[in-house]
Amino acid sequence: MEQRPYISWELAEKFMIDVFKAYGVPEEDAAICADVLLESDRRGIESHGCNRFKPIYLDRIKNGTLLPETKIDILKETPTTIVMDANNGMGMVASYRMMEKLIEKAKIYGMAGGSITNSTHYGIAGYWTTMAEKAGMIGISGTNARPSVAPTFGVEPMMGTNPLTFTMPTDEDFPFNFDCATSIVQNGKIEYYERSGKDTPAGLVVTKDGGTMTNSGSILKEMRKGNCALLSRGGAGEETGGYKGYGFTTIVEILSAALCGGPFMKELSGKDEEGNNKMFRLGHFFFVINPEFFMGLDTFKETAGGICRGLRASEKAPGEERIYTAGEKEHLAWLERRELGVPVGEAIQKEFIALRDECALDYRFPFED
Amino acid sequence: MEQRPYISWELAEKFMIDVFKAYGVPEEDAAICADVLLESDRRGIESHGCNRFKPIYLDRIKNGTLLPETKIDILKETPTTIVMDANNGMGMVASYRMMEKLIEKAKIYGMAGGSITNSTHYGIAGYWTTMAEKAGMIGISGTNARPSVAPTFGVEPMMGTNPLTFTMPTDEDFPFNFDCATSIVQNGKIEYYERSGKDTPAGLVVTKDGGTMTNSGSILKEMRKGNCALLSRGGAGEETGGYKGYGFTTIVEILSAALCGGPFMKELSGKDEEGNNKMFRLGHFFFVINPEFFMGLDTFKETAGGICRGLRASEKAPGEERIYTAGEKEHLAWLERRELGVPVGEAIQKEFIALRDECALDYRFPFED
Repeated sequence: MEQRPYISWELAEKFMIDVFKAYGVPEEDAAICADVLLESDRRGIESHGCNRFKPIYLDRIKNGTLLPETKIDILKETPTTIVMDANNGMGMVASYRMMEKLIEKAKIYGMAGGSITNSTHYGIAGYWTTMAEKAGMIGISGTNARPSVAPTFGVEPMMGTNPLTFTMPTDEDFPFNFDCATSIVQNGKIEYYERSGKDTPAGLVVTKDGGTMTNSGSILKEMRKGNCALLSRGGAGEETGGYKGYGFTTIVEILSAALCGGPFMKELSGKDEEGNNKMFRLGHFFFVINPEFFMGLDTFKETAGGICRGLRASEKAPGEERIYTAGEKEHLAWLERRELGVPVGEAIQKEFIALRDECALDYRFPFED
Repeated sequence: MEQRPYISWELAEKFMIDVFKAYGVPEEDAAICADVLLESDRRGIESHGCNRFKPIYLDRIKNGTLLPETKIDILKETPTTIVMDANNGMGMVASYRMMEKLIEKAKIYGMAGGSITNSTHYGIAGYWTTMAEKAGMIGISGTNARPSVAPTFGVEPMMGTNPLTFTMPTDEDFPFNFDCATSIVQNGKIEYYERSGKDTPAGLVVTKDGGTMTNSGSILKEMRKGNCALLSRGGAGEETGGYKGYGFTTIVEILSAALCGGPFMKELSGKDEEGNNKMFRLGHFFFVINPEFFMGLDTFKETAGGICRGLRASEKAPGEERIYTAGEKEHLAWLERRELGVPVGEAIQKEFIALRDECALDYRFPFED
């Protein structure tokens, strides 16, 4: 790992809460949002943590495309389902309230499902599925996002990077947690490459002429203009299964919009026809499944853990040292970072200092010494 | 499409039912099984249709690893969930009964989930999810299978090709139907290559030394010995997202075994330690979600259809004529085959003639003239 300064989890959390509050987010909501962002850093998913604090949340509050106060309307509720309207407030707050309710429903009914419309970026999908897992249940979630991904045989950015995330209890120290975009990479990774001054590997992005691009800054700019697009997992064409990644991306696009009756694809660009900012109006979905309504949680955990252990113990390819299961790298990142704290690269250090000054907060960061 | 003789759907169905009956399958069950297999041919998925009638079902009834009579025990039932034991009977029959019950539950409760243990090959996963779709609901299903797929950085066949299948209603002539293995290809495709005398494309299979294999017959033989394995979607390593395909394969392995408390991975080989046949003891899972418990079926259909139409109308890569959405090719196959009938290649013709003679049935096939 590259040498970077770290700041303590407590400091980062307190600071983010204070900044969110200065931006008008109520304290209880600010605590939820800071925890979601820091959970991403805890898991080593830096593309979705402190890295996105300013550009994806604070800047949007400032430009009016994200409301700091989250007014939630329940559009429909049944014993097993809920549809919420987040009214362009904090997607993380609405998602937190949704998961609290779905877990209660799944305790009683075994299965529960929810969808949120008129929402905003909800952080890592795995935060929501892990809420279910901590309650001894299976969590499934996905969200649409700004159009970035081209369909198989296409070149136009049509769909979001659309994670389809599952977290499931095991009898190990950490759950099975599969949390990633259905495209080969997500926008956050390219933003992260850009902020780290790195190129994006070839073959992840398709241009209108069917070629590829690697300059991370140009990719982000041209994608928003519709001039290039991310490829689905499996790559271009059909031979290597690219159409399967495309299928999963589409499943998430449909579930995110069709359950709540919200907008989709190009309507989620965050820009109107004149190129002015508008509300993102994202949609998310959540399913919770309670193993106690099947053969019991203990059976579930033991089986899931047994599968993970069996996979890790299987024969490795020549030159490979280790086989991982989903969620293991995130757990290892946490074990390493628990004491070290949150890694803050140069770009984040500058942002934190500027935010402190802007909000007139009384902090002094260790990296300033 | 290559020139092949076709036989009528009615003839194929009647013949398959009669053969299943001659093998001891009760008439009502035989009708279900024939319909599942022919539905695969209707959709153009020849790897799972008539092609598998003899090797995967009849031969297994004969060698005792598949019982023609399906005794179903309900291990657990709640208002929203069911766990069944299929007692090594016909997986297709147990799955049919499961879906009938789950659809009824989802009509009342909005969500339903089921799992089957001690089962056998259940045909195309899309048959079960389409039962939900025909009832105006979302169907999700998956199954484990004989170990064939290696984890990322591994070379040992550990998991099944494990489809994760979604069918969702649209306002079009056909549903959104995403039905495929989470590996790049499934075993049925390699069986189909073998029967057609074709090689398997390079890069789909990994050998113990990290290389690849293309001889389809050798792949099937060596995989059962554990000497080669299928790769997950995305291919080997992590750069191109292979670990994401691996994650989905693992999700299906867990859900198929952990909800019903059944066996997994190497235990599903169908062979005991001495290499003798044993019961496969497969597990399947099924979820049904009723859009009427969210913002309504009409809203769901219109949104899902709108997404599919938007994708198909988006800009094509240079040289590409058409963008498809999941389920469209299956629908086109049906439109073409509806009048033509079931395509029966040479291998199937021979099997049908032999089966007729073996069962002393009174059929004369058009391809015999």
